[in-house]
Amino acid sequence: MMLKGVFIVFSLLLVASYASVQDFCVADLSLSDTPSGFPCKDPKKVTVSDFVYSGLGAAGNTTNLIKAAVTPAFTAQFPGVNGLGISIARLDLAVGGVIPMHTHPGGSELLVVIQGTICAGFISSANTVYFKTLNKGDIMVFPQGLLHFQINSGKGPALAFVSFSSPVPGLQITDFALFANDLPTEIVAATTFLDAATIKKLKGVLGGSG
Amino acid sequence: MMLKGVFIVFSLLLVASYASVQDFCVADLSLSDTPSGFPCKDPKKVTVSDFVYSGLGAAGNTTNLIKAAVTPAFTAQFPGVNGLGISIARLDLAVGGVIPMHTHPGGSELLVVIQGTICAGFISSANTVYFKTLNKGDIMVFPQGLLHFQINSGKGPALAFVSFSSPVPGLQITDFALFANDLPTEIVAATTFLDAATIKKLKGVLGGSG
Amino acid sequence: MMLKGVFIVFSLLLVASYASVQDFCVADLSLSDTPSGFPCKDPKKVTVSDFVYSGLGAAGNTTNLIKAAVTPAFTAQFPGVNGLGISIARLDLAVGGVIPMHTHPGGSELLVVIQGTICAGFISSANTVYFKTLNKGDIMVFPQGLLHFQINSGKGPALAFVSFSSPVPGLQITDFALFANDLPTEIVAATTFLDAATIKKLKGVLGGSG
Amino acid sequence: MMLKGVFIVFSLLLVASYASVQDFCVADLSLSDTPSGFPCKDPKKVTVSDFVYSGLGAAGNTTNLIKAAVTPAFTAQFPGVNGLGISIARLDLAVGGVIPMHTHPGGSELLVVIQGTICAGFISSANTVYFKTLNKGDIMVFPQGLLHFQINSGKGPALAFVSFSSPVPGLQITDFALFANDLPTEIVAATTFLDAATIKKLKGVLGGSG
Amino acid sequence: MMLKGVFIVFSLLLVASYASVQDFCVADLSLSDTPSGFPCKDPKKVTVSDFVYSGLGAAGNTTNLIKAAVTPAFTAQFPGVNGLGISIARLDLAVGGVIPMHTHPGGSELLVVIQGTICAGFISSANTVYFKTLNKGDIMVFPQGLLHFQINSGKGPALAFVSFSSPVPGLQITDFALFANDLPTEIVAATTFLDAATIKKLKGVLGGSG
Amino acid sequence: MMLKGVFIVFSLLLVASYASVQDFCVADLSLSDTPSGFPCKDPKKVTVSDFVYSGLGAAGNTTNLIKAAVTPAFTAQFPGVNGLGISIARLDLAVGGVIPMHTHPGGSELLVVIQGTICAGFISSANTVYFKTLNKGDIMVFPQGLLHFQINSGKGPALAFVSFSSPVPGLQITDFALFANDLPTEIVAATTFLDAATIKKLKGVLGGSG
Repeated sequence: MMLKGVFIVFSLLLVASYASVQDFCVADLSLSDTPSGFPCKDPKKVTVSDFVYSGLGAAGNTTNLIKAAVTPAFTAQFPGVNGLGISIARLDLAVGGVIPMHTHPGGSELLVVIQGTICAGFISSANTVYFKTLNKGDIMVFPQGLLHFQINSGKGPALAFVSFSSPVPGLQITDFALFANDLPTEIVAATTFLDAATIKKLKGVLGGSG
Repeated sequence: MMLKGVFIVFSLLLVASYASVQDFCVADLSLSDTPSGFPCKDPKKVTVSDFVYSGLGAAGNTTNLIKAAVTPAFTAQFPGVNGLGISIARLDLAVGGVIPMHTHPGGSELLVVIQGTICAGFISSANTVYFKTLNKGDIMVFPQGLLHFQINSGKGPALAFVSFSSPVPGLQITDFALFANDLPTEIVAATTFLDAATIKKLKGVLGGSG
Repeated sequence: MMLKGVFIVFSLLLVASYASVQDFCVADLSLSDTPSGFPCKDPKKVTVSDFVYSGLGAAGNTTNLIKAAVTPAFTAQFPGVNGLGISIARLDLAVGGVIPMHTHPGGSELLVVIQGTICAGFISSANTVYFKTLNKGDIMVFPQGLLHFQINSGKGPALAFVSFSSPVPGLQITDFALFANDLPTEIVAATTFLDAATIKKLKGVLGGSG
Repeated sequence: MMLKGVFIVFSLLLVASYASVQDFCVADLSLSDTPSGFPCKDPKKVTVSDFVYSGLGAAGNTTNLIKAAVTPAFTAQFPGVNGLGISIARLDLAVGGVIPMHTHPGGSELLVVIQGTICAGFISSANTVYFKTLNKGDIMVFPQGLLHFQINSGKGPALAFVSFSSPVPGLQITDFALFANDLPTEIVAATTFLDAATIKKLKGVLGGSG
Repeated sequence: MMLKGVFIVFSLLLVASYASVQDFCVADLSLSDTPSGFPCKDPKKVTVSDFVYSGLGAAGNTTNLIKAAVTPAFTAQFPGVNGLGISIARLDLAVGGVIPMHTHPGGSELLVVIQGTICAGFISSANTVYFKTLNKGDIMVFPQGLLHFQINSGKGPALAFVSFSSPVPGLQITDFALFANDLPTEIVAATTFLDAATIKKLKGVLGGSG
Repeated sequence: MMLKGVFIVFSLLLVASYASVQDFCVADLSLSDTPSGFPCKDPKKVTVSDFVYSGLGAAGNTTNLIKAAVTPAFTAQFPGVNGLGISIARLDLAVGGVIPMHTHPGGSELLVVIQGTICAGFISSANTVYFKTLNKGDIMVFPQGLLHFQINSGKGPALAFVSFSSPVPGLQITDFALFANDLPTEIVAATTFLDAATIKKLKGVLGGSG
C-alpha cells in the first residue's frame, strides 16, 4: 500500500527520462546515413526482432572458385547494431577454400574457429608477417586496416565467426580493388609493379576493364 | 580609417566560415535521433534561451514512498546540451529519502552536495563497495555503468546536483528493470536467485505483471 | 636490376616510418594501466603468439549451481586485444544453466549461438523487456550497460560466443554486486526494497557479510 | 547448501575478470601523463577516499580585485575523475565579482547557480553573443572552446558550480594569455589592434614583461 | 575459366556489403547537421569531384588592413571531408600581413610554410608563450583551442597551408568576438580590463555596437 | 594599483590549474607507447622547438626506381603532434615518379599540390575508382584505410604535402606487404591469384624470401 507512491513518482520520472535515453539506435535504412551511423528507427516501433538476426544460421554457398563464402551481419543486414560499435560475419571455407588478401578500413577483427583448421595471418605496416594455423576454439585478432587472409588448411570444411569493432567495418579485397573495375591498366601497372599482361588477365577474370 | 579594411575582408571570411563551424548543435527533437545525438536546430533560429534552462530551480515532489525526486536536464528536457558531452540533474531527498540502486549506461556521474547529508556509494565490477557519508560541498564521482545509490542520512532534507559525462546518460533503476514490466516471474527468479513470492510482491507494488 | 633502387629508397622510408606506426599495442601487463589501455609491449618482441589465444577451446566447468561458465578473453587473458576495441568470451551452459542478470559497463555485446537453445534478453532504460529464444546460428546484440541474461532453454548443453565492443567491457553481476560483499544489509534493503531476511540469506549463500 | 557451488564457480570467474576490468582509473600523478590521462593507481590501493573530494566545501577567497575565485576539482586536485570524462569547479563571486573572458580548450561547461544572480554569456565563432541573467537554480551550457564570462549582477554574493565534459578542461583567461607573460608588446599589438600603451599598462598590472 | 566462379560469388558478397560500408560520407549540406557532421549524400551520386577542391589554388585578396587572407576548405566549402576528421585552409600574408590572435575551438592546427617567413606562436593554459620564426618548409603545430597567431616577418609575401584535425575546426578571432558584435561595452570592460574608450574605438572599427 | 590584487589571486589559481591542464602532450619516445599515444615529456622541459620541425624543408631523394620520396613528420619524427590528432608528410615526385598503391590504416589523408601535376586516386570498398589529375593548389581527400596512389603525370617534378587525421596514420604499401618479407609464396599465390613466377620475381626485387 505504502509502496504505491513509488510507482507514481517514478512513473513521472520515467516518462521524463524515456525520451532522453539513447540505449540503442536501430538503423532506419530509409534515411540518409551520417558519419556516426544511420538515424534511429522510432523507439516505440522497436521490438526484440530488431536485436536478433538469423541470417548467419545457414552456411554460405562455397561452390565457387575460392571455395569460400562470407556472410555479413553489418548495419545493412542487421540494423540493430547501428551505433553500438560491433558487428559480426560468418566465414565458410570448403576444403581448399580461401578468403583472399583484404582489409577492413573501419575496424579490428576477432576470429573464432568453430570447425576445422584455418591458416590465418596479417601483415603489419613494418611489413612483418604474423601467421599461424588455428584449430577449433582458437581465436586470433587482426588490427584495423591491415592486410590479412584466411585459408582452410585442413582436410574438411572450416567454419569461423569474425567479430568487428564497428557496425560498418568495410571490406576491401585487394584483387577486386585492383582488377574488378575500370582503373586503367597503365595505372595499375605503375602502382603495383605488375606487368600489363598479368593485369589484363586478372581484369578479364574478375570483371574489370580498361 | 585604415582599420576599416579589416571589417570588409573579415566579413567575407566570416560569411564563409559561418556555415562550416559547428560550435554547438541544439537538438531538433522533431527529427530522428542519430548515434551521435539529434540533428541540429537551424543555427539562425538559435537564441540564448536554447542554452539556459530553469527547470531545475524548483524542488521535485518528494511526497512519495522513496521520499525523493530526480529532475533531469538531459537532451530531451534541455536540447542545448545535445552533442556537448555533458548534462545535469537535480536530486531532492526528504528526510529518509533514497535514490534506489541504479546505473547510468551512458555516462559517469559527479555529485555535489548543496544541502544536508547524503550516504552515497557504488559497487565495482570486482564487487567491492565504495561508500561514504557526504556533507555540504563534498563531491563524489561514480564511474560509468556501475551500480550506485544515494540515501539521505541526515536529519533534514538534502539537495544535490549530479552532472554526467553525456547529454543522454540513461538511467536504469534495478528494481524497476526487474519488477516494473512483464518479464516472466520464472525468468526473474532464474536470473536473480529471488523466490517467486518476493518477485510477485514487488511486481505488484511496482506495476509489473507476469 | 633497375628495380633494386626501389628496395633501397623504401628501406630508408620504412625505417623511418616503422617507429611512428602504431598498428597494434599488445598490452604489457607489468606496467600501470591507462584510461586508453595498458602500455604496449616492445614491438620488436611481439610475435604471432601475441595475437592468438587458445584459452577458449575447452568448455568451462559447469558442475556448479548455475550450471554455467563464462571464460573471458579480455586484455588480462589476451593482451593482443589491448587498444583494438574488441574482445570475446565463451559461454557454456549445461542443461538448466543460467548466466544471471548482469551488465557490461564498458561495451556492447554480440552473442552467436553455436550449440543448443538459449533464451536471452535485455531490459532498456525505459524498463521495456526484449527477450527471445535463440537457436543455433542466431545472433543477438545487447546494448552497452543494460541488464541482460542468458538461460539454456533447451534439452541439451548450449554453447555461445559473445563479442564485446571493448577489450575491457567489464562484468557486473547484479546479485554479486548486491550480496557478495560487505555492503550493510540496511543499505541494501533501503536501495532495493528487499527485506532483511532475503538479503541476509543471499549474503550467506554468495559470501557476503554485514 | 546447493547455492554454495555458485560461490565457487563465480569466485574463479571474478578472479579472472578482475584484472581485465577497468571500471575506473584513479590517476597516479607521480607517473607521466598520456594523451588519454594519467596512468592508474594500483586498483588494490584504491579506497572510497579516491572518489570523494572535500576541497569545494569552503568558499574561495574573493578579497581581490576581480572579487571572485575559481576552485577547481580537475584531475590534479581530484585524481578520481581521471579517465571518466567529467570534472567540476566552484565559482565564488563577491558583490561586483567577475570571472574574466576565458575559454576551456578541452571541454564544454555546464553552470548551475546555487546562490545569487549571475550574468553569463558566450560568443560563437560567428561572433554572435549569447548572454542572460541567471537566477538561483538556473543552468547554462557553454560549448567547448568558446569565449565566455560570468559576472555577479546581483546585490549579494553569488555561488555556482560548473561541470566540464573532461577531467582536464583547461582554462585560458584571455587577459592573462595576452598580458601576463613575456610575449613582446609589438606582437601583442600586431595581433590584437591594441596600442602599445594599453598593452604595457596591462602587462604591468598582470605581471607580464616585454 | 575456373576463376569465373569467383566473380559470381564475390559479386553477391559485394552487393551485400556495399550498403553496409561507410568508406566516406560526403556532406549533403541541404539536410540538418548532426553532432558528428552532416548526413551523407547518396553514395550512388558521389563522383571524384566530391573529393577534389580547387578553391585554394588562387591567392586570397590581401589588399586590406591586415594584409592577409584565410581561405578555408572546411565541410561547408569542401563537403568531401565531412566525417573524415581533417580539413585545410590557405593563408596568404602580404608584406606586413597578420592573422590576428585567434583559436580553433574544434581542432588542432598544423602549419607548413610554402613561401616566405612567418613568425608564429601560441599561448598555453599556463600562459607560457611558444613562438618562433618559420622559414620555407618548416612546420609548426598549434594545440586545440589555444590562442595563436601568424605574422609575416619577412620582406616578401608569405604563403602557408594549415591543416586541422577536424572537418569543422571553427575559428574565433578574439578581436572580432569582443568588438564586432553588440556585447555591451560595460560587459566587455568588466571582463577584459580594457577601458570604455578603447572598446568603443575598436567596436567602431570592427563593426560592433553597444 | 588596485589591479595588483588580480595578479595575486590568479597566480594561485594558475598554479593550481597548471598541473591539471593538458594542452599538449609532447611524446617522450623513451617510454612505452600506449593506445592513445606516447606518455608526455615533462611540461616544464617543453620549449617551442618541440612544436616546430624543419625536416620537411628539403626535398627527399628521388634518384631511385620509383623516382619518388615520402618524408614523414609523424610522432616518431615530430613528437609535438603526439595526442593532437594530426600529422603531415612531404611527397617529392620526380618526372615519372610514383607513390605505389598503399593504405594508411590509422587515418584519412588530405593532399595539397604545391608544384607540378599529379594523377591521384583511391578505390572504395565497393571497388569503385575515384581518380583525377590535380594541378597546383588543388586538394584531394583520401578516406581512412582505402587503397590509393599518386603519380607524377606532368613534365616536371611535383611536390605535395599530405596531412593525416592522426599523428600515427601508418603506411602499408601493398607491394611491400606482399613481396618484401618471408610470407611463403604459396600463401601469396593462394590469397592474390598471382602465379608463383610473378611472386618470386617481385620477392627478388623487393627483398622478400620464401
